Amino acid sequence: MSLLVTGSIGIDTVKTPYGVSENCLGGSSVYFSMAASFFTPVRFVGVIGSDCPFNLAQVFADRNVDLSGLEIRPKSKTFRWAGTYHDNMDDRTTDNVELNVLAEAPPGVPDVFKDSKFVFLANTTPALQQQLLEQINGPDFVAVDTMNLWIQDHLDDLKKLLKKIDCLIINEDEVRMLAADNNLIKAADIILNMGPSVVITKKGESGSIMCNADGDKFILPAYPATVVKDPTGAGDSYAGGLMGYLAQSGKTDFETLRTAIAYGTVVASFAVADFSLNGLANIRKSDIDSRLETLRKLTTF
Amino acid sequence: MSLLVTGSIGIDTVKTPYGVSENCLGGSSVYFSMAASFFTPVRFVGVIGSDCPFNLAQVFADRNVDLSGLEIRPKSKTFRWAGTYHDNMDDRTTDNVELNVLAEAPPGVPDVFKDSKFVFLANTTPALQQQLLEQINGPDFVAVDTMNLWIQDHLDDLKKLLKKIDCLIINEDEVRMLAADNNLIKAADIILNMGPSVVITKKGESGSIMCNADGDKFILPAYPATVVKDPTGAGDSYAGGLMGYLAQSGKTDFETLRTAIAYGTVVASFAVADFSLNGLANIRKSDIDSRLETLRKLTTF
Repeated sequence: MSLLVTGSIGIDTVKTPYGVSENCLGGSSVYFSMAASFFTPVRFVGVIGSDCPFNLAQVFADRNVDLSGLEIRPKSKTFRWAGTYHDNMDDRTTDNVELNVLAEAPPGVPDVFKDSKFVFLANTTPALQQQLLEQINGPDFVAVDTMNLWIQDHLDDLKKLLKKIDCLIINEDEVRMLAADNNLIKAADIILNMGPSVVITKKGESGSIMCNADGDKFILPAYPATVVKDPTGAGDSYAGGLMGYLAQSGKTDFETLRTAIAYGTVVASFAVADFSLNGLANIRKSDIDSRLETLRKLTTF
Repeated sequence: MSLLVTGSIGIDTVKTPYGVSENCLGGSSVYFSMAASFFTPVRFVGVIGSDCPFNLAQVFADRNVDLSGLEIRPKSKTFRWAGTYHDNMDDRTTDNVELNVLAEAPPGVPDVFKDSKFVFLANTTPALQQQLLEQINGPDFVAVDTMNLWIQDHLDDLKKLLKKIDCLIINEDEVRMLAADNNLIKAADIILNMGPSVVITKKGESGSIMCNADGDKFILPAYPATVVKDPTGAGDSYAGGLMGYLAQSGKTDFETLRTAIAYGTVVASFAVADFSLNGLANIRKSDIDSRLETLRKLTTF
């Protein structure tokens, strides 16, 4: 079934203990689309300025990513982000953020995308996410990312949005902050009461936890990657693998969601193995399937 | 097969966000023995002073814990520890430590224990652990705990000990410190090269990872406990469940080790549900087996 993503396209400069990647392609919708395209066609909505050095049509060549929702604003500048990862590859310092085009009006959802059934709203202000969501006619399954800043400063907007979506995919610190509870299981239950029927808590190198409104739970460790060069985009790649598999399956029952989380986990493990999109650019679906089976063996007792 | 534990018996004062437990029974060998006794008889080696208010024979009544190795020193004082857990129940501040009898000569291993086949050396100086180990005649499987202090200040002793043991069970910070590598998989491989054939990395509420010298790996999340009142003794309870199951099975192949880790994980989840030994005192083996099956379902895709 159709899968739509709204999110950022970025010019990233990333420093990690393994090197520096200057002015490389990044952004949530880019990572998401690359990841999801292994499973299903992707409808891409995003906006760049005239300074963007990347040819997205070329980036996504042969990848079944429909760029009808890519808007290029001649008088605007593209979003830029620069960050430095610490030795543990988990904590990072933001060195520079230039919102540029992201601070303007959001891109419109093209008419041909408005019947999308699976929707991922990557991280931006909850009000903007709601505006984007309102342009879709009756989606089946809407998943959303958010961040600490909006939980702190835009909580009312976020709570309104949570009533209209199906699945929240955020990291453990954000889960604790939003629920005001340190126990991740109790915190997920609190968030489920705010609206979504599924809460997925990302724990970085410790994997993820899914809880649903029926009390079902699923816990999966991360794939034990030994090559981690650049964690940028790991979360969006995870969401891309997950939503890509769901849209491909056309189902959202708990059994399908479990497998979707496993696919998200595995796709993220490839994404972090190299800078920018390189970790995802050079693999095939069969590599993903093979690693999924390895992960199954690694976690079965 | 026979299982021996050497470790501490403590008078603990524990503060957590859920309450305070003053002068309660604690200590690594106590938690370990309580946990392991669900699976197999335990041979207990430890030392207390005349001030110890606890009757260990009563504590372990009907639990198949042989206290022949319990030494009571009339002129000594029992080990005391006091600590406060922070809101996240992971970080803790040590408020007070009185080594007392632990700073004296270690207890002797009784002759009737010297043929023990499975041995757990709970955390103390590596030199002391080696002295204790040398009193055992040809054990089949020796597992060891250690801590940051000994990795920093007694590294040579620790490295000597590592050559003589089978399994190291330590937490993730200690793994990183000992291996001088932040990646837990690479770090485990580095430690495997120091001697042990199995390295088990404990990650608290994020579960544990086992790596062996053949390149086999197993990763298991923690049981998603919603009731966590006192994490004290979680690691020793984990080791107790793990070693108890191994000794009961009489095997140490990777398949058996996987199940042993699952049992350790589940036993630890009961241990943290209440202060002191209370979480383990009021359960039955059937509760452990039932939760093991729940954990299996929670982690299967």
